[in-house]
Amino acid sequence: MRFVDLICKKREGGELSDEEIREMIADYVSGTIPDYQMSSMLMAIFFNGMSDRELTTMTMAMRDSGDIVDLTSIPGVKVDKHSTGGVGDKTTLIIGPIVAACGIPVAKMSGRGLGFTGGTVDKWESIPGYQTALSEETFFKAVREHGISLVGQSGDLAPADKALYALRDVTGTVESIPLIASSIMSKKLAAGADKIVLDVTVGTGAFMQEYDRAKELAKRMVAIGNGAGKETVAMLTDMNEPLGYAIGNNLEVKEAIDMLHGEGPEDLKEICYALAGMMISLASNDDSKVSADDESVWGKHLSYEQGVELAKKRIEDGSAWEKFKEVVKNQGGDLDYIENPEKFPVAACSGELKASGDGYISWINTMDFGLAAGMLGAGRAKKDDVIDMSAGIIMKKKIGDRVSKGDVIATLHAASDDMIGSAISHLENGAYRLSDEKPDLPKLIYEVIR
Amino acid sequence: MRFVDLICKKREGGELSDEEIREMIADYVSGTIPDYQMSSMLMAIFFNGMSDRELTTMTMAMRDSGDIVDLTSIPGVKVDKHSTGGVGDKTTLIIGPIVAACGIPVAKMSGRGLGFTGGTVDKWESIPGYQTALSEETFFKAVREHGISLVGQSGDLAPADKALYALRDVTGTVESIPLIASSIMSKKLAAGADKIVLDVTVGTGAFMQEYDRAKELAKRMVAIGNGAGKETVAMLTDMNEPLGYAIGNNLEVKEAIDMLHGEGPEDLKEICYALAGMMISLASNDDSKVSADDESVWGKHLSYEQGVELAKKRIEDGSAWEKFKEVVKNQGGDLDYIENPEKFPVAACSGELKASGDGYISWINTMDFGLAAGMLGAGRAKKDDVIDMSAGIIMKKKIGDRVSKGDVIATLHAASDDMIGSAISHLENGAYRLSDEKPDLPKLIYEVIR
Repeated sequence: MRFVDLICKKREGGELSDEEIREMIADYVSGTIPDYQMSSMLMAIFFNGMSDRELTTMTMAMRDSGDIVDLTSIPGVKVDKHSTGGVGDKTTLIIGPIVAACGIPVAKMSGRGLGFTGGTVDKWESIPGYQTALSEETFFKAVREHGISLVGQSGDLAPADKALYALRDVTGTVESIPLIASSIMSKKLAAGADKIVLDVTVGTGAFMQEYDRAKELAKRMVAIGNGAGKETVAMLTDMNEPLGYAIGNNLEVKEAIDMLHGEGPEDLKEICYALAGMMISLASNDDSKVSADDESVWGKHLSYEQGVELAKKRIEDGSAWEKFKEVVKNQGGDLDYIENPEKFPVAACSGELKASGDGYISWINTMDFGLAAGMLGAGRAKKDDVIDMSAGIIMKKKIGDRVSKGDVIATLHAASDDMIGSAISHLENGAYRLSDEKPDLPKLIYEVIR
Repeated sequence: MRFVDLICKKREGGELSDEEIREMIADYVSGTIPDYQMSSMLMAIFFNGMSDRELTTMTMAMRDSGDIVDLTSIPGVKVDKHSTGGVGDKTTLIIGPIVAACGIPVAKMSGRGLGFTGGTVDKWESIPGYQTALSEETFFKAVREHGISLVGQSGDLAPADKALYALRDVTGTVESIPLIASSIMSKKLAAGADKIVLDVTVGTGAFMQEYDRAKELAKRMVAIGNGAGKETVAMLTDMNEPLGYAIGNNLEVKEAIDMLHGEGPEDLKEICYALAGMMISLASNDDSKVSADDESVWGKHLSYEQGVELAKKRIEDGSAWEKFKEVVKNQGGDLDYIENPEKFPVAACSGELKASGDGYISWINTMDFGLAAGMLGAGRAKKDDVIDMSAGIIMKKKIGDRVSKGDVIATLHAASDDMIGSAISHLENGAYRLSDEKPDLPKLIYEVIR
């Protein structure tokens, strides 16, 4: 069959067969299908969508286009977690140690930040000495010996996705929910975990600002994961304000350390306990490894709620904190900073975003705060921009807080006053709203999609 | 503005500005916009369409991408005619002389056949000696001196359309009505006429088989023509059976000669009078050239019906026939064939399609007859195929005719019995249907769109 006939089939609302989809991905990667045909197909998919079967087949074909991490040599059920992105999201730094402290192996690869979102790898690298680029052998060894390793993405995972994403980026086909779902899930499936917990953010600081679209994305990703034989659960979480107070790399590490000590912001705690609890519950539901050890979760069939309780316990008993230190030490990080966070470098300059009037903070343009952090040096506009690990923003007020004119809403940290001035100007231009009435606080976890 | 933003705008149902459209066509022709972005835009246009303003601007930009024939040096109102294609359509050979015999200059460029449709240029070239490739100078001189010249397309008309069509052909974006309309009209507008009559065919032998789509195409083309300042009228005509009886180049010329003598099939007469009448009416409605000459149409504001009457008169008084001979002679054709059509070469072999049963012919797959004529050597499957001018089909029965089993429905002519055998097999496989009840005859002219 000629590829143009497949384009017409999709354009007319037809379903492509599994064989047609696999050939499409293989031929696109090999260059047999040119970009100008694939972009037309992608636009037809934008309009007519894909069934769950089509989407699962496509995602698996994308996964199969490159390296697939084989975690089978690591005993136990490996549960991965992925967030669709947000501002102030330092959950991986906290959840990894919690889950590992439950005896569940954590072999996690994270990405770097781009645009308004931060990246976990950058946050790790703000700890002096911490190595995120480990060989696969060292990475596996770390997981086997310490139950946890947290690194950057390596290998050539889902190169079909890289090629398709680059094409979508210039052909107006980024915003298709099935295509977004297949892009995320092809990489997740290639990363080799047995089960996947998806944190699908929604709100002013998320890629999905509309609830219906976020929910649709969550459903499609869950269908792909389950279709590919990996139990997948999505949690729809709020991103209508930064998570916690800190935005920026070492600022967020310090907040994560607070939480690992049982302190820190309530919203961050709730999200971390929820995600970790779900990961623990999924791991415990596997009967392939049952242990008589009371401390182990294997085969215990813990409910989500029991998982959340266990996550809290692992913070309270200090075991998550110990696991965090173990990771940092094993990956070359300087424990002195972790144990004495006041030693982290502090930016040379600082400034304040002050309330323009009296009232309750009723709405925050979270993406604007992410972009402002980037302007301060905490993020990247282009892939090769260098990050200032000490730059960023500390929120002093969040939605529902009462302010009087001139009160500090956020403090800003950067290497120069110019950067701070630009970021404040950006934020003063509509990044928050005040109301006379106390607004409802955003719900943190909206829905669980299984 | 980046082109990807324009793709997104169109994808979301927005309208592109005139400036954006002009830049898009210019940048595509220059190669600044790559194929993979344009194909994505074309697919977005397939789904979201274009407004009449957008479409007119795009068509004019396509027209402006190449040569534009300047007919202003030829006095009088030049009216062009274009058919969207059919089987047995020899109308140009007849209408040109009729209209020229009314004193209206006919400077007409036609195309070659491809696929199931014949091309007027091929039909002219079946007259031994007839030259269809004239220099612009010779072409204009012929029109000035004889009031008529009928040639093949020359020059680089609407190269943007050529490039876009080639891309559409491989990206599943051919079947978009606005894109079809702009493709046809960009070339028509570049051909330089003052007014345009469009013969939009609909039925089993037309590109548009559905009435609603044909009507939509007619409306869009009329809007483009009028929007570009050229009065344009479309006539929706039937193509549910071949026009007349003859399909194939010199077979059709002979039928055209019959009609120029006032004989020939009634359906062909009605269509020719209608199209010629409309062209005459449009030409006469122009006040810029008013003549006291009783025989002239200029400034007479003839109605369509009056135009039709005049067209009939030009056949009856023999002036159209004289004009036909004048064209043929002036373009190098051998008048001996025209005056003695029995001299035209006759194919070596012939065969008969015989009725498979008793009944009325109730339906004809006209495209199948066009394809069968091609199999006999009368058409081209690829652009460089050589045509056998004497090959083709003569229909003996059409819709509404009663047949008994074994009656001849059509005779076939070709260079070999093998070709005839293949074509008969093709036609026996569902190219016509019989019914017990006499069917309604197809209406010939459905609607006039102004």
